[in-house]
Amino acid sequence: MPLLVMKFGGTSVADLERIRNAAEKVRAEVERGYDVIVIVSAMAGRTNELVGWVGATSPLYDAREYDAVVSSGENVTAGLMALTLQEMDIPARSWQGWQVPIQTTSQHGAARFVDIPRANIDAKFGEGFKVAVIAGFQGVSPEGRITTLGRGGSDTTAVAFAAAFEAERCDIYTDVDGIYTTDPRITSKARKLEKISFEEMLELASLGAKVLQTRSVELAMRYKVRLRVLSSFDDTDETSGTLVCDEDEIMESKVVSGVAYSREEAKLTLVTVEDRPGIAAAIFGPLADAGVNVDMIVQNISEDAQGHDKPVTDMTFSCPVDQVARARKALEAARDAGHISYETLQVDEDAAKVSVVGIGMRSHAGVAARMFSALAQEGVNIKVIATSEIKISVLIDRKYMELAVQALHDAFELDKAG
Amino acid sequence: MPLLVMKFGGTSVADLERIRNAAEKVRAEVERGYDVIVIVSAMAGRTNELVGWVGATSPLYDAREYDAVVSSGENVTAGLMALTLQEMDIPARSWQGWQVPIQTTSQHGAARFVDIPRANIDAKFGEGFKVAVIAGFQGVSPEGRITTLGRGGSDTTAVAFAAAFEAERCDIYTDVDGIYTTDPRITSKARKLEKISFEEMLELASLGAKVLQTRSVELAMRYKVRLRVLSSFDDTDETSGTLVCDEDEIMESKVVSGVAYSREEAKLTLVTVEDRPGIAAAIFGPLADAGVNVDMIVQNISEDAQGHDKPVTDMTFSCPVDQVARARKALEAARDAGHISYETLQVDEDAAKVSVVGIGMRSHAGVAARMFSALAQEGVNIKVIATSEIKISVLIDRKYMELAVQALHDAFELDKAG
Repeated sequence: MPLLVMKFGGTSVADLERIRNAAEKVRAEVERGYDVIVIVSAMAGRTNELVGWVGATSPLYDAREYDAVVSSGENVTAGLMALTLQEMDIPARSWQGWQVPIQTTSQHGAARFVDIPRANIDAKFGEGFKVAVIAGFQGVSPEGRITTLGRGGSDTTAVAFAAAFEAERCDIYTDVDGIYTTDPRITSKARKLEKISFEEMLELASLGAKVLQTRSVELAMRYKVRLRVLSSFDDTDETSGTLVCDEDEIMESKVVSGVAYSREEAKLTLVTVEDRPGIAAAIFGPLADAGVNVDMIVQNISEDAQGHDKPVTDMTFSCPVDQVARARKALEAARDAGHISYETLQVDEDAAKVSVVGIGMRSHAGVAARMFSALAQEGVNIKVIATSEIKISVLIDRKYMELAVQALHDAFELDKAG
Repeated sequence: MPLLVMKFGGTSVADLERIRNAAEKVRAEVERGYDVIVIVSAMAGRTNELVGWVGATSPLYDAREYDAVVSSGENVTAGLMALTLQEMDIPARSWQGWQVPIQTTSQHGAARFVDIPRANIDAKFGEGFKVAVIAGFQGVSPEGRITTLGRGGSDTTAVAFAAAFEAERCDIYTDVDGIYTTDPRITSKARKLEKISFEEMLELASLGAKVLQTRSVELAMRYKVRLRVLSSFDDTDETSGTLVCDEDEIMESKVVSGVAYSREEAKLTLVTVEDRPGIAAAIFGPLADAGVNVDMIVQNISEDAQGHDKPVTDMTFSCPVDQVARARKALEAARDAGHISYETLQVDEDAAKVSVVGIGMRSHAGVAARMFSALAQEGVNIKVIATSEIKISVLIDRKYMELAVQALHDAFELDKAG
């Protein structure tokens, strides 16, 4: 029997009516001949309520108790979903993490999968059950305590089950109807993609497109799990949404697939840093320890280099605006401790990042030139450039962000289908 | 280390502040030198919400899924209680039913204990933990599914743990401050009892005093678990509340300990029933099958006996008013099927039951006479009488119920201490 994994997020199971609506989508797949593993989140708002209670009880809470409390939200949805399916005469039962058992590490609040043994669920499918409803976001540690997986954990649960059960596909039902060439709120020309490769999705996910969590896409890429993102609020069929898949499945792809952005970025420059082996580690080690998510890094010869007896350089990097204070503190501490030296720390808190992403870049030259030219035509000044094999990112003034996204979307003709 | 079981019901853990208040009571016992097992209910209102969702999803629900959903309420409280205790620097952790594991039968929604292995919890006490917080009302079946114990399940969990861990005492914290000689809403002369025997408590519990569930008292009696009922909203110490204990612990007891009542009773009489061996089974079998809780039964010679060729009798019984329709249907069906015969079914729906309870009755004659005389003085007519070794119950007109309770409370001088 072919098998499908279907995942429903919090807004898709926010109340009993939406749970029924989601169950209808499961029924449609059962009628198409699939066995189905359904992964559910907590009803929207529930997890926040539970997290709030834990925080109010104990500001520095024991993560094991946090997990025991917070995981209860998914258990409720799983039971209600199983009951709803039973009402439709579909043989179904719920599974809590420890019942499968979903084996994870002991890192409470951020556990990672160790194994998902198939035996218990396979046995139920063997008895004629059509649907296994799994409480997402949770597992059980080697010590027998309940663990949770951290943000986006239900997506990750879905992909992990799809891999373990060799599912034909993993459908992620959410509140948007697919992956777009860019944010439709910024340009109405944004177009829904029929397919996108794992690599591209990964760049888009980590660049601020919030539809799928990075970790779930990484896992899908590693195990070649075909992911489909689609809306739980629309009528859907087998062609709905966007398929995230191996690039081999994408016949002809455009050079650029999408334009991503991240609005609240800051640019920090350490001016006149001593240029010696190990200086990068001396700078970025303390930043990492302080929990600063450093993104783009550029090192260039200082303009002041000539007047110095030792070789000096300038070191520029970007990070989210709300981490600037932390970054400053970490750098000043490192200087006070004598680990690094610099003349000044320049901070520009008015930056945004815009990126073009596409696997086609690998075989096409001139993408960067086309990007810079499109931005220049609109008078947008580029502060920092960073590139990867399938992505070019630029840091620009925040006020130009929407303009830049629109200009790039036009320049690469993303409104036109492949 | 001496060990105490403390149980907090739903109103005692209704919000974070009340959980803190309950935790303070636990702290006091830890400071007195006890290891403590805390049993918690769901926060007040939560279980009803979950039950409501299940009922709205599936009117004839799968009891296994019901249990999976409804048990989540206790899991939340257990985690929050453990966190609250940790904040007070008391080493504590939460235990869900499957983690102990609390082994039960597979009767979902009404499971019974099979075993509570001590090893896991004892090991934690051995590591220096002072408190084990247990999610009440739940267990795990031999099939690995979550079970619940039915109404009052958390009280039963508390008693079962007290038995398994040979606790010095099992303290049931609730919203009343003890067991009274009768309902204080009916007479202000009602007096709180310092001690009451298991047998008396059992009669009072099954007669309508709602403080403790019958099943938990039965269990306590069987395993000689000393139960204390006390208020979670008052300042309490080791002498607070009422101790439910073996009668050996009660030095001198009054002939009557309390007056109980049940307001909504009905009296049904089958007139001119054929009097033959097996007739009682032929009548009460179908009633039991129909779920009618028959209470008092009286059989007497029919006034019409003389005119019949076969021996005939009248059969009178009582049951809750809301079961009368069911009883009538069952009896008519039995007559239509030819299993019983009767001339008429007389139904009196305006009855109430009043009982006096006391282990002293065993050794004192004249209690019944004193009871009937007190009622006669107030002009209260007795419809049916039933007696057990430590109880005398009468069925009377409902409108005299309060009057009867007050008169009996006075007659047996229950306002005066032993």
